[in-house]
Amino acid sequence: MGSRSPPMLKGTHVEYSAEGFYKGLVEAGLIVPTRVPGTFGRNAVFEDVLARFDGLIGQLAKDDGAELFVFPPTIDRTIIERTAYLDSFPNLAGTVFSFFGNEKEAKALSAKVNGNEPWADTQGMTEVCLNPAACYPIYPTLAGALPENGRLITMFQWVYRHEPSLEPTRMQSFRVREFVKAGDPSSVVEWRDMWLKRGTTLLQELGLPAKADVAADPFFGRTGKMLAHAQIDQKLKFEVLIPVVSEEKPTACCSFNYHQDKFGGVFGINTADGQTAHTACLGFGLERCVMALFKTHGFAPADWPANVRKRLWPS
Amino acid sequence: MGSRSPPMLKGTHVEYSAEGFYKGLVEAGLIVPTRVPGTFGRNAVFEDVLARFDGLIGQLAKDDGAELFVFPPTIDRTIIERTAYLDSFPNLAGTVFSFFGNEKEAKALSAKVNGNEPWADTQGMTEVCLNPAACYPIYPTLAGALPENGRLITMFQWVYRHEPSLEPTRMQSFRVREFVKAGDPSSVVEWRDMWLKRGTTLLQELGLPAKADVAADPFFGRTGKMLAHAQIDQKLKFEVLIPVVSEEKPTACCSFNYHQDKFGGVFGINTADGQTAHTACLGFGLERCVMALFKTHGFAPADWPANVRKRLWPS
Repeated sequence: MGSRSPPMLKGTHVEYSAEGFYKGLVEAGLIVPTRVPGTFGRNAVFEDVLARFDGLIGQLAKDDGAELFVFPPTIDRTIIERTAYLDSFPNLAGTVFSFFGNEKEAKALSAKVNGNEPWADTQGMTEVCLNPAACYPIYPTLAGALPENGRLITMFQWVYRHEPSLEPTRMQSFRVREFVKAGDPSSVVEWRDMWLKRGTTLLQELGLPAKADVAADPFFGRTGKMLAHAQIDQKLKFEVLIPVVSEEKPTACCSFNYHQDKFGGVFGINTADGQTAHTACLGFGLERCVMALFKTHGFAPADWPANVRKRLWPS
Repeated sequence: MGSRSPPMLKGTHVEYSAEGFYKGLVEAGLIVPTRVPGTFGRNAVFEDVLARFDGLIGQLAKDDGAELFVFPPTIDRTIIERTAYLDSFPNLAGTVFSFFGNEKEAKALSAKVNGNEPWADTQGMTEVCLNPAACYPIYPTLAGALPENGRLITMFQWVYRHEPSLEPTRMQSFRVREFVKAGDPSSVVEWRDMWLKRGTTLLQELGLPAKADVAADPFFGRTGKMLAHAQIDQKLKFEVLIPVVSEEKPTACCSFNYHQDKFGGVFGINTADGQTAHTACLGFGLERCVMALFKTHGFAPADWPANVRKRLWPS
């Protein structure tokens, strides 16, 4: 942060800078900085926009018949073990450790902490990890035969990625409004395609310069590059992108993933006629969508365009 | 779970059983079991009651002028290091670990996970831990001189405790509606006393058999017993208790803590006239309050007493 930051807006020409945008969010009081990158607090204005935007998504989906669930930020560790998450994103996973010792060992732990010594060796792995993607906790609960038309789930979850960054859209913990469809391949793909249009339109109608594109996950290492190419070739992942901190590298605000029979196979999810179910998910990165609104329309929602305000705050 | 579970209600006589209550919540679809105790999903009905109850708390506080913040479930690890949390509750703290290795080490991690071998040794401690109590992340942000009348904060946070249990009110991850007051000792204590009455009354008006009492934290080990006695002697902690899974051991649904100058001292929070600020916090355990409603009024909100329904769903 400092005087080198470019001004956020110059007439109609938008300037993009991660540093400048972060500074703007902080100065407007929208986020509250903390010592660790990617763990800032959000204020009431930020939260109101987030809740209103989430409400709009809910309205779009209201006749779809999705079942709502909320799972905690900590989930069964075996989910990431069984789904090859650690093969693809070992660097992003957060595992939860705790202390399993007796009173004497607790004293040793205290002595280390209070003496500013490393204390990682006092901790053992627990049965939970942080939820790495909003859809993960639902799959084990879908095991068995699905109803005739499959199942449609929506969730509101906190997600964790170990990627500390001062770039404000790259958070360690963030919220996702997620939808998951499990069923036969064609209904799942059709549903994904419908939402890709619906999500892009929603963001565009809020005045955001949103564009959909084929995408790849940030697979780890050299093998990961090949996985990314295959994913793009098969068009398994799409994102809706909006420039927030960079015009050249717009921010993925919405992500659409077709898993084919991956989760169905791992967790024994079957269609009504006994085939391995296919699944797809899509998630709105809620903080990123909110930040896209602040970047595009300014830091004061009272000054946003009337049509945008009316959509978010209809009454 | 099984046929040994007593019926939940026999005429007007309420039977209490952790096992039976858990089974009832699952059968009503209100919670979705997972493999790891204390990490279940919540369904739309559960979430609606939770949001409505949280809204009532907000209404009670609406003229108090509290600033709202939401912090993520993962917070700066040095907060628990500096506040002696690990001296008192080493067994409850959850620390976040991740993988910091290169591609070769990632392959070794994959081999362990896919070979069903322990893989804790592939993980290193990150800069974040799970938030152990809703108020923790706010204190570092209050450093410096407070305004004349102190500061009043409200937060909505996910909190973690490493205490896996099949007792449904004892969750690993749960949500808390929190309030924190920082200022001079008398205003802080007066505010705490006001909320103790307000919180108890709110729960009683919802038909819940709520009672306030002096309480102690579950400090670890033998030294912990002395700390608990001192806390009770000084009346530093109160709880509002409601029978949910046991009549003899009612569940703490709301907790009030007067920290004296502890956090003020650690984080350099001062009153406007330069004294170390005192702080107090209070939190509604939202899932526990919701469960108290289900236990007391039954698993179907449509059948709850009219006055309770009118309070939660006024329009």
